[in-house]
Amino acid sequence: MIYNIRINVMPLKDLLDPQGKAVLGGLQNLGIQSVQDVRVGKHITLQIDAENENAAKAIAENASKQLLANPVMEFFEIEVI
Amino acid sequence: MIYNIRINVMPLKDLLDPQGKAVLGGLQNLGIQSVQDVRVGKHITLQIDAENENAAKAIAENASKQLLANPVMEFFEIEVI
Repeated sequence: MIYNIRINVMPLKDLLDPQGKAVLGGLQNLGIQSVQDVRVGKHITLQIDAENENAAKAIAENASKQLLANPVMEFFEIEVI
Repeated sequence: MIYNIRINVMPLKDLLDPQGKAVLGGLQNLGIQSVQDVRVGKHITLQIDAENENAAKAIAENASKQLLANPVMEFFEIEVI
């Protein structure tokens, strides 16, 4: 069966996020002042062929650890939809 | 009040996603064969100071339209958490 998996890969909370800071500056230049913090990461959707939801989730976790996220700088969260 | 907003910006479904194709190739090289499709976009979290949830959502939508997403190539979805 095909499972749709969504993975968010975000910069670790303790680290600076230069891309987020750039977006924040851009928003302020556009006059959008009420945004106080921005963090930018990746949103990845996978279609995984697996026997059940847990197997699909395990494959996604393996993929995240091996390729999608850099654990030194990023954390990831996985959601099955 | 501060609202946490999550925005996903993804390539339009009808468009090729070269970054996703590259990730798919990378996963297959790692021996992860059960992944059949990958699409890669951006996950953006905003902290917005607004009077209520609807106001925060409106600000996020405005920010997405003006800066975060390119409507020619991308669509976005907004979630208040």
